[in-house]
Amino acid sequence: MTTPRKPRGPYRKGVRRREQILDTALEVFAGRGDAPLQEIADRVGLSQAGVLHYFGSREELLLAVLRRRDTLDRAAGEHAGGPGEAVARTVRHNMDQPGLVRLFVSLSAAATDPSHPAHEFFADRYRDLTATIARGLAAGRRAGTVRADEDAEHLARLLVAVSDGLQLQWLLDPSVDMAALVETFDRLCAAPREE
Amino acid sequence: MTTPRKPRGPYRKGVRRREQILDTALEVFAGRGDAPLQEIADRVGLSQAGVLHYFGSREELLLAVLRRRDTLDRAAGEHAGGPGEAVARTVRHNMDQPGLVRLFVSLSAAATDPSHPAHEFFADRYRDLTATIARGLAAGRRAGTVRADEDAEHLARLLVAVSDGLQLQWLLDPSVDMAALVETFDRLCAAPREE
Repeated sequence: MTTPRKPRGPYRKGVRRREQILDTALEVFAGRGDAPLQEIADRVGLSQAGVLHYFGSREELLLAVLRRRDTLDRAAGEHAGGPGEAVARTVRHNMDQPGLVRLFVSLSAAATDPSHPAHEFFADRYRDLTATIARGLAAGRRAGTVRADEDAEHLARLLVAVSDGLQLQWLLDPSVDMAALVETFDRLCAAPREE
Repeated sequence: MTTPRKPRGPYRKGVRRREQILDTALEVFAGRGDAPLQEIADRVGLSQAGVLHYFGSREELLLAVLRRRDTLDRAAGEHAGGPGEAVARTVRHNMDQPGLVRLFVSLSAAATDPSHPAHEFFADRYRDLTATIARGLAAGRRAGTVRADEDAEHLARLLVAVSDGLQLQWLLDPSVDMAALVETFDRLCAAPREE
């Protein structure tokens, strides 16, 4: 087993600075998915080149933002009753962050092109997310809360599709209640109650 | 009641030419969502400007292609048993047209921006599609085939979300069987069988 070494000196300072930029970018993009790099640079007191020094490119920064959001979402969903509840909670949170939803929708669509720099990231993300949710649903099946007549992986793919598809509908019509609809889907996946 | 007049003379010729370009564009985009305008122009024996004369802009041509696809899909789904079956059939057909799926995914994502020229088209499309599917599901409820414990409009929104979200997953991983997953979702919406 290897113990991760704590970063020290200038390297540690660089890591901290990167985190600070990431937090700021997350905040800025939450409001406007298409915020210009300059706005983030201004907020952290750097030039655009200074910001890019930490991320390499605008695309890399955007990906780091989405990765960070996934990490926060996972942490928030940890104490949910099941995958459906965890996704509903995430989606409810997203409804306060239209900019990040827009960023996610446009970047994921562009990344379907195999030559896009984020293609690998999204392919991995969907594989991992589906597997995690499928494990949670399989546990629900064993506990008798999730219906046993459909494959857990298929239900997982549908849950992920529902949350992605609803983002599109919500951006086009903000009166769509994404979180309530994810909860509806979750009920469709529930085991029938014993009479 | 007004009878639509049959177009005559040069106007009719223009309509025919437009239809021909549209058919060709549909064919070309079916294979490659990002096909250059020149490829369509070459196939119909026109210059790019000649093609644009009939559509105004590249965006308008893309929208006309998607509109035409919707019309063909609706016709194909007319004799389906219910909305779920109709969507599954459309999705199965789409699996032979990755280019059109890619075009739809990227254009719908871009159109979430209210200033995008296709914003209105997509907002209308989702409203109409959801209403049509909800009517079909409500009929299924009355016939006892669709579960009655959830709102038909909510199930309709979920069915649309499922088919959109699966397109993203399928483009990232072509082994995802979109049509089979729509069928799975359709079973989740079925009324419980009498024992």
